[in-house]
Amino acid sequence: MNASSNSVRVAIVGASGYSGEELVRLLLRHPRAELVAVTSRQSAGQTIAQVFPRFATHPTARSLKFSDPDTATLARQAEIVFLALPHGVAAEFAIPLLRSGCRVIDLSADFRLKSAEVYKEFYAHDHPAPELLAQSVYGLPEVHGEAIRGARLVASPGCYPTSILLPTLPLLRAGLIRPTGIIADSLSGVSGAGRKAEIDYLFCECNESVRPYGVPKHRHLSEIEEQLSLAAGASVVVQFTPHLIPVNRGILTTLYLAPSRHLATPADVATLGAEISACYAQAYSGAPFVRLLEGKALPDTKNVVGTNVVEIAWRLDPRTGRLIVMSAEDNILKGASGQAVQSMNLICGFPETEGLL
Amino acid sequence: MNASSNSVRVAIVGASGYSGEELVRLLLRHPRAELVAVTSRQSAGQTIAQVFPRFATHPTARSLKFSDPDTATLARQAEIVFLALPHGVAAEFAIPLLRSGCRVIDLSADFRLKSAEVYKEFYAHDHPAPELLAQSVYGLPEVHGEAIRGARLVASPGCYPTSILLPTLPLLRAGLIRPTGIIADSLSGVSGAGRKAEIDYLFCECNESVRPYGVPKHRHLSEIEEQLSLAAGASVVVQFTPHLIPVNRGILTTLYLAPSRHLATPADVATLGAEISACYAQAYSGAPFVRLLEGKALPDTKNVVGTNVVEIAWRLDPRTGRLIVMSAEDNILKGASGQAVQSMNLICGFPETEGLL
Amino acid sequence: MNASSNSVRVAIVGASGYSGEELVRLLLRHPRAELVAVTSRQSAGQTIAQVFPRFATHPTARSLKFSDPDTATLARQAEIVFLALPHGVAAEFAIPLLRSGCRVIDLSADFRLKSAEVYKEFYAHDHPAPELLAQSVYGLPEVHGEAIRGARLVASPGCYPTSILLPTLPLLRAGLIRPTGIIADSLSGVSGAGRKAEIDYLFCECNESVRPYGVPKHRHLSEIEEQLSLAAGASVVVQFTPHLIPVNRGILTTLYLAPSRHLATPADVATLGAEISACYAQAYSGAPFVRLLEGKALPDTKNVVGTNVVEIAWRLDPRTGRLIVMSAEDNILKGASGQAVQSMNLICGFPETEGLL
Amino acid sequence: MNASSNSVRVAIVGASGYSGEELVRLLLRHPRAELVAVTSRQSAGQTIAQVFPRFATHPTARSLKFSDPDTATLARQAEIVFLALPHGVAAEFAIPLLRSGCRVIDLSADFRLKSAEVYKEFYAHDHPAPELLAQSVYGLPEVHGEAIRGARLVASPGCYPTSILLPTLPLLRAGLIRPTGIIADSLSGVSGAGRKAEIDYLFCECNESVRPYGVPKHRHLSEIEEQLSLAAGASVVVQFTPHLIPVNRGILTTLYLAPSRHLATPADVATLGAEISACYAQAYSGAPFVRLLEGKALPDTKNVVGTNVVEIAWRLDPRTGRLIVMSAEDNILKGASGQAVQSMNLICGFPETEGLL
Repeated sequence: MNASSNSVRVAIVGASGYSGEELVRLLLRHPRAELVAVTSRQSAGQTIAQVFPRFATHPTARSLKFSDPDTATLARQAEIVFLALPHGVAAEFAIPLLRSGCRVIDLSADFRLKSAEVYKEFYAHDHPAPELLAQSVYGLPEVHGEAIRGARLVASPGCYPTSILLPTLPLLRAGLIRPTGIIADSLSGVSGAGRKAEIDYLFCECNESVRPYGVPKHRHLSEIEEQLSLAAGASVVVQFTPHLIPVNRGILTTLYLAPSRHLATPADVATLGAEISACYAQAYSGAPFVRLLEGKALPDTKNVVGTNVVEIAWRLDPRTGRLIVMSAEDNILKGASGQAVQSMNLICGFPETEGLL
Repeated sequence: MNASSNSVRVAIVGASGYSGEELVRLLLRHPRAELVAVTSRQSAGQTIAQVFPRFATHPTARSLKFSDPDTATLARQAEIVFLALPHGVAAEFAIPLLRSGCRVIDLSADFRLKSAEVYKEFYAHDHPAPELLAQSVYGLPEVHGEAIRGARLVASPGCYPTSILLPTLPLLRAGLIRPTGIIADSLSGVSGAGRKAEIDYLFCECNESVRPYGVPKHRHLSEIEEQLSLAAGASVVVQFTPHLIPVNRGILTTLYLAPSRHLATPADVATLGAEISACYAQAYSGAPFVRLLEGKALPDTKNVVGTNVVEIAWRLDPRTGRLIVMSAEDNILKGASGQAVQSMNLICGFPETEGLL
Repeated sequence: MNASSNSVRVAIVGASGYSGEELVRLLLRHPRAELVAVTSRQSAGQTIAQVFPRFATHPTARSLKFSDPDTATLARQAEIVFLALPHGVAAEFAIPLLRSGCRVIDLSADFRLKSAEVYKEFYAHDHPAPELLAQSVYGLPEVHGEAIRGARLVASPGCYPTSILLPTLPLLRAGLIRPTGIIADSLSGVSGAGRKAEIDYLFCECNESVRPYGVPKHRHLSEIEEQLSLAAGASVVVQFTPHLIPVNRGILTTLYLAPSRHLATPADVATLGAEISACYAQAYSGAPFVRLLEGKALPDTKNVVGTNVVEIAWRLDPRTGRLIVMSAEDNILKGASGQAVQSMNLICGFPETEGLL
Repeated sequence: MNASSNSVRVAIVGASGYSGEELVRLLLRHPRAELVAVTSRQSAGQTIAQVFPRFATHPTARSLKFSDPDTATLARQAEIVFLALPHGVAAEFAIPLLRSGCRVIDLSADFRLKSAEVYKEFYAHDHPAPELLAQSVYGLPEVHGEAIRGARLVASPGCYPTSILLPTLPLLRAGLIRPTGIIADSLSGVSGAGRKAEIDYLFCECNESVRPYGVPKHRHLSEIEEQLSLAAGASVVVQFTPHLIPVNRGILTTLYLAPSRHLATPADVATLGAEISACYAQAYSGAPFVRLLEGKALPDTKNVVGTNVVEIAWRLDPRTGRLIVMSAEDNILKGASGQAVQSMNLICGFPETEGLL
């Protein structure tokens, strides 16, 4: 697992949900990853091809069987283990796997926060492994790339936070916006709710429907605010409203931000606009998965679904003095499994885009 | 056309779009309206049943033919004429019809503003009949019911404005929120774009897609701000972001509002909450088409599509001190044709809900 | 409950599924039905408005509470009881209700067949009340209207059978098609699967998906074949393939039929075409809910969803000698609850279309 | 362009429709294809990234500009030219390109038939280049692989024909089904209609709708019947009914076939079933893009969309004596652009799956 090694042996724990399925897809076709184990209690004994017919074309999918999750076995087989498990459960696996020398990329919320108290406030149970919080790295490669390279435990960000943090962090760090009054209004496809047999997510309950939920204190606020506070050097409180819309995949976020300076004249607007452009360009000119839209283009989830890209566009409104920033991503790719593989690439010294284009 | 008359003769000009089609449906089944004329250049000569097969069960739909629009003929046939035409065109019909003694309910933007200058700023052409602006009544029955009863010219509100004004006006009038910093984030079904053969609204361009548009200065801002300013007694500037989502019908609006008072303690929150409840109850307890949600319920477009109802729910966020108000409506009914018929009921002295339940 | 009575007291047992919800909607607004009881174990104690917010505008919805189902109470309250229950369960309620003098309109499959053996073959359990099969009437008003008027127990047809039988029965009775080789290929919206928390019917599993199921022996074949055999005077065996498509509502059926006569010349085609037209016109000219399409029009579910109408069109193919007949209906209305109310209208001597236009 | 060459220079004429866009995607990421030109009158001068933002991550997409189509220039630049043009237009380009030594893979219908008369019967105009029909090869790699390898002009099959021919041809060649009475009932996503600004394909006209069209003589019948006739050694006439369903992509075809032998006993059914299994296994065991489903699995478009795979399952119905075969494919991939690239791989001596997994 250093830059010179040609490939890496990987395993996925909890591979039967939507994020797990996408990890399987990405890792099967990744030119330098060898998928050696996939676990799922409910699918144990079946091949990947049986559980996910769409992958049946791949030889590994036809031979590799789901197994019951067992950390000792996993630690022998794999160098990197992806955890695609519910929060609270992921920690159980992370502890022994890390002890055995595996690197762990966790897609749950368990290691995203530095504070066990905040975790308890938002997730309503004690943190299962507070001793690991200090060593975990928040897996947003465009922001914490260097730390991810050396991390033993990566906490891959939530889907909403990714769509909010990438557009906001550079502006906050550059002092172009105020750390107060941030509003994030987000729209998510139904896959974000997971593959769970609940009435609320039936086709007929979601189709021809749009609805807010989790107002006003969604769990993802905890990691959004922690990351923004780190960047601002001060405590940031955010207003966040998620909505469910009838698409399979995609998150569209509209951010309402307050520029640090008053926009009194058209010249003020032009000056700030140039600074925002420069700020984003500097932050993301080398980021292969951030697409800064130009001209009249605005983000559209259909332009990012199926890719690991986040699209960002912004407008200054001289009437209100506010900055509107909009982003679009695939909630299962850049918002989950794609980003986790991006972290794996960094850990392994592979090109950041390996297996993700 | 007084309270004692049993029924009213009505006509629809421009009945081939989505709003026009819905007007046809509502007026065909309205127990006290007699649909005597429908016009459409492209459908002239065909019966309603031929153009809209779904109405073929109704005898009038099988006999009444679309005609070329002619104001002299319309004025002889109908007491009330609905205009479902593009802005700029509606005025051409309104002038002679009003002169002939018809009452006119216009669904376009032509008569919604009091200022011809603001009209020109937002619609990019001179107002076609500025002399009529003084007499037109903004057709929001829950707010301007008395004026609508006596109006000769009703300007039926836009779909977005309805979803924004009904939740906001009572709070503003009661002084519970500040007139500054209002943000409206709205999601609309594709029927809002009309029945126009444009690539952007093809199934494959809208399905599995969500996108903002018209940022930051959508035309509907003009009427939103005028109505809010009237209520606030001061000039109100609004931040408004519309988004297109893949449903046929429905608008979901999320409003970010600043309470007039600082929320320092839980008691402050409780007190303000009680005042908001009371304010809405007073404003809408007699309003048959406003549904104030209680308990944990949040608006969902699927609960209002096909009805003339707007759902409203709100949450105070003690973390941010902000008030979040959410509304849902059917953009073609409460946001257009249903509301226009509601105005007709008021004009004719019919029960407000006649033909709309 | 005779033609002179002004209204009828009705109850719905099992009102929490999609068909039950639609029955509630239809009966709340039916001008001559008084909804006196709705039962649902899971919703007992809640008002209709609480369970189905979209009906909250109706006063009865705000006052009438769901109760636990109890046949003695129901029999005291209602003259007609609708059963919207799973097959096998409906019979438990039908027996005591009929004994108490209620009329029963059952939407399940329990009383659609005359033979308890065929029932067992297709439903895999013994018939729960074989003694009632002789008195039940198959509730297809366009075909069995006279029997329905006097029925004490109506077995309302399945959604697929309705879409297949209405286009086929007149042709078979007239001898215009052969009773052999009938193929019905049907596409159904997801509401046909009911409001059940199953992975297969989640939004993400149905959206952007189309799939056949129940091939080649779907349960609805039993009633389709029984009704066709009655009409043909001979045993009819049908090929039937249902498919699930991503719409909330609607069934589109394409039928492949063999004309009784060989089509050797264009004149043969013209002659048979005229006979088919005449046959359908005779069968359905007085049927308010059958729309025979003319000219180039073909059925489209969007033209019937929300109505009790079935659309029918046909084409003779001179290349193959076959007759293609296509139908479209709303699976929850004409395919379930609308048709059940249509039967109620016949039983009560109301106009057939009462409350259904 | 022989097995030893490492890569091939390719161009796409008419790259702005859905098939053209998908060709761009496939060829951009194809490891052995170099995309050297894309043409489109309406997009000339813009880069691929500007026209299709989703490809902007790829460097070629940011540099390669659409040009006006010019065959002389194309012939200098490219070894293989893909034509993604309307029928009737493709021939204009094919003639000079072939003369200049290019190989041409045409996605239109222009070269799929051997008979200019049949072409005229189905496409309603004279064939634009009848002299080329003899040399064109029908580009179904699983069937005509050998001929495709040496072809100068490949006529890539239609989307419906691919979904019908792959399941039917092996059975017909093996004599397991009769060449008479074949029925194909197909359901297609809306992308099949192309990126055309027509009312019929607007979101609101397709969403919550399903409808047949082109009954009973769709143009694709001509190539279906020609290919089946070749396999049967006799003239085959097919009944084909296409339907439009609200998905972006995917075709599901259900075939009703008559086994050659009467199925009198369960043993007959078992014997024929074994022969069908063996027939399909022999035909497609080496075909990387045909997935023969086993056990209870039935085709589902969501398992093939985004891939070049066609799924096939079948059922013998002992009640009717009929064989039901079902297939699913992505209409834009296996039904168009994916299959065209598969042909390119054969022509170039690349592995058949290169760039398609």
